[in-house]
Amino acid sequence: MSSPPIVEITHRAEFSAAHRLHTAALSDEENRRIYGPCNTVHGHNYAVEVTVRGPVDARTGMVMNLTDLMRVMHEEIISQVDHKHVNEDVPFLAGVIPTAENMAVAFWGRLAVHVDAFAGSELHCVRVVEGSANSVAYHGPSAR
Amino acid sequence: MSSPPIVEITHRAEFSAAHRLHTAALSDEENRRIYGPCNTVHGHNYAVEVTVRGPVDARTGMVMNLTDLMRVMHEEIISQVDHKHVNEDVPFLAGVIPTAENMAVAFWGRLAVHVDAFAGSELHCVRVVEGSANSVAYHGPSAR
Amino acid sequence: MSSPPIVEITHRAEFSAAHRLHTAALSDEENRRIYGPCNTVHGHNYAVEVTVRGPVDARTGMVMNLTDLMRVMHEEIISQVDHKHVNEDVPFLAGVIPTAENMAVAFWGRLAVHVDAFAGSELHCVRVVEGSANSVAYHGPSAR
Amino acid sequence: MSSPPIVEITHRAEFSAAHRLHTAALSDEENRRIYGPCNTVHGHNYAVEVTVRGPVDARTGMVMNLTDLMRVMHEEIISQVDHKHVNEDVPFLAGVIPTAENMAVAFWGRLAVHVDAFAGSELHCVRVVEGSANSVAYHGPSAR
Amino acid sequence: MSSPPIVEITHRAEFSAAHRLHTAALSDEENRRIYGPCNTVHGHNYAVEVTVRGPVDARTGMVMNLTDLMRVMHEEIISQVDHKHVNEDVPFLAGVIPTAENMAVAFWGRLAVHVDAFAGSELHCVRVVEGSANSVAYHGPSAR
Amino acid sequence: MSSPPIVEITHRAEFSAAHRLHTAALSDEENRRIYGPCNTVHGHNYAVEVTVRGPVDARTGMVMNLTDLMRVMHEEIISQVDHKHVNEDVPFLAGVIPTAENMAVAFWGRLAVHVDAFAGSELHCVRVVEGSANSVAYHGPSAR
Repeated sequence: MSSPPIVEITHRAEFSAAHRLHTAALSDEENRRIYGPCNTVHGHNYAVEVTVRGPVDARTGMVMNLTDLMRVMHEEIISQVDHKHVNEDVPFLAGVIPTAENMAVAFWGRLAVHVDAFAGSELHCVRVVEGSANSVAYHGPSAR
Repeated sequence: MSSPPIVEITHRAEFSAAHRLHTAALSDEENRRIYGPCNTVHGHNYAVEVTVRGPVDARTGMVMNLTDLMRVMHEEIISQVDHKHVNEDVPFLAGVIPTAENMAVAFWGRLAVHVDAFAGSELHCVRVVEGSANSVAYHGPSAR
Repeated sequence: MSSPPIVEITHRAEFSAAHRLHTAALSDEENRRIYGPCNTVHGHNYAVEVTVRGPVDARTGMVMNLTDLMRVMHEEIISQVDHKHVNEDVPFLAGVIPTAENMAVAFWGRLAVHVDAFAGSELHCVRVVEGSANSVAYHGPSAR
Repeated sequence: MSSPPIVEITHRAEFSAAHRLHTAALSDEENRRIYGPCNTVHGHNYAVEVTVRGPVDARTGMVMNLTDLMRVMHEEIISQVDHKHVNEDVPFLAGVIPTAENMAVAFWGRLAVHVDAFAGSELHCVRVVEGSANSVAYHGPSAR
Repeated sequence: MSSPPIVEITHRAEFSAAHRLHTAALSDEENRRIYGPCNTVHGHNYAVEVTVRGPVDARTGMVMNLTDLMRVMHEEIISQVDHKHVNEDVPFLAGVIPTAENMAVAFWGRLAVHVDAFAGSELHCVRVVEGSANSVAYHGPSAR
Repeated sequence: MSSPPIVEITHRAEFSAAHRLHTAALSDEENRRIYGPCNTVHGHNYAVEVTVRGPVDARTGMVMNLTDLMRVMHEEIISQVDHKHVNEDVPFLAGVIPTAENMAVAFWGRLAVHVDAFAGSELHCVRVVEGSANSVAYHGPSAR
């Protein structure tokens, strides 16, 4: 019997948040030079796109039930960051400079254990989209 | 000789800003009840779409030079609100509850005199887009 | 004291549905000639965009609370048609040929009384979007 | 018996074309000053959105058969301008400065008689979209 | 002489279809629990994005003529599924639970031999997009 | 101490250009047969999406400062091709058949040295988007 096809499924969810790029490790002047206009409080309609990879279950025709993926994403990410000031109001981002890069890595940390709990599925990519021109993608700690 | 055609031109520009819906005229509880999750600081990638209406100049084929419209929108709106916390950092929105409705009316107030200074052109509509699901449109004080 | 500005607010919601364009008033051949490929069961990701028009409340900065508009749209439209076969599963469309035109008119009939119940607001437009290339707009029975 | 609802239907079609904004009525220097970077040959993926307005036919549930509107748009516009240099290769634009304003007016001239030939339908708006930031709309010679 | 660059080209086509997620292998109750609202007939505007990978032909500057790719996609996919009820009207999906995962795998099966017939080209990815929030990607049977 | 996460950041910029697919290496008839409607001068709103890959700097939370990436893209690509006829007005494309494939490879050649000059960053992908239906991606000369 042939092995089942390996497919990637992606779900996109949106949230609106304020953030400011600033680190206490640098002087105010260096903060302004490095982060430019992002050094002041502003905001975005973010999207987070989560990709899960795994074999298609021959009985259901699904890699992972989309309802489960949506619930995990809502509980672990959206309900935590939507309509928040991410520098101040989100416990799991406390002390993190909220660049899209750091947000993607932090989101991976929240999602991986929940996604991997579903038989056969593994978290493959977390993409954070910051408006129509900019996005970042993280493929996890084993990506080299 | 026939009169020139009347055409509407629209330019869209984007900005990222933080805002919070809150008014001192109401109790904290009422603020939370009315504005819900928007009562805390969050943010959006806004778009503002400005429509100018007027006759097409037979010599240039234009209602108004798009370069002029873009410059007016940049000077009067985008440079003022982009990468800002609109409740705190924008002088012309001081004391205004920054709903999309109030922002559209305030933007009209900044733009009208500059657009109407171009012969034949008149400001026709200011639309404020707050993400993919919500927008408002204002057609000016004479709209009834 | 000047009268408050009149603003239009628009909210967009999406639903997925199957439909078939067919009428018992015509022969099968005429149905095929008029509706072409739409004469067989197929489906769309529809969007419905509802525009409400009214004065901006000076106290709240809003025409109508978006939460109320979203609730009305969900109860009257989305919960009725999402993930349905609109020819068979939607009581308020029974006997209606589900063209986008007829759906917009039917949606207006569901929404108007609820929207108009909010002081100052009136339903201004119902737009039904059937994919990226086609949409219809209905401005109500008084539009001539 | 009540009169039928009046609905607007819109179809969007896309085309790719090169153009240059330049007029022999002005000096080369004035051309460069007025049209800026648009004074040299460049190109766009244009979209044209045509809106037809009329009563919904009670028998078919349609204002105008979308197949007919698509055919008229294809024959009169898309087949003429797609993959063309509009300054040089399109007879009905010969001698026209191909601004979006002039293209919308010219398209109206090509479409109106064909759309109005369908009982009850009238051409309501021609919109020319020149990328994600700029568009123009023409409502015909009777718009004042 | 250096070897030619390897490039991936992607073409996107859209289709509208109805589907229902249901399998005779499960009880009605299990079907409802697993597939939720997707257990009833509904529909989508699907997009299928096909990526072909290969060396750029030095003579033509192309990996594969886009006209050929479009023709293959139209003949093998779009003409078969557009404006259809995929559970009932599409022979190559007979007996397949029409999840996006299974559709992507089935589309790969239809496309691969035709794409690989063009010298140097190989089918690289089939993506099925089911609205703005959900998509799946299949990289073929050798993906592990 | 654990090694820093490896993340990909992508920036998208747009430009408008005219092009014509034609090669002196073929007869006029072969040019018409191979390139079809693209054998005449037409144009597009192109987008170029550049992906840079590298470790997240623990001090700044960034792979590469987006301001630097935007400056490199503007200087090397956008300022050279925007509002140009790419067959005639762009020195680095002289003699190149301006298919999207060849443009992506040429853009890589302009960008790689500048991106790789930033410590830890490496150019990962150049995508050229030619309208909503077609795009190409190039992962560099080492992609096999």
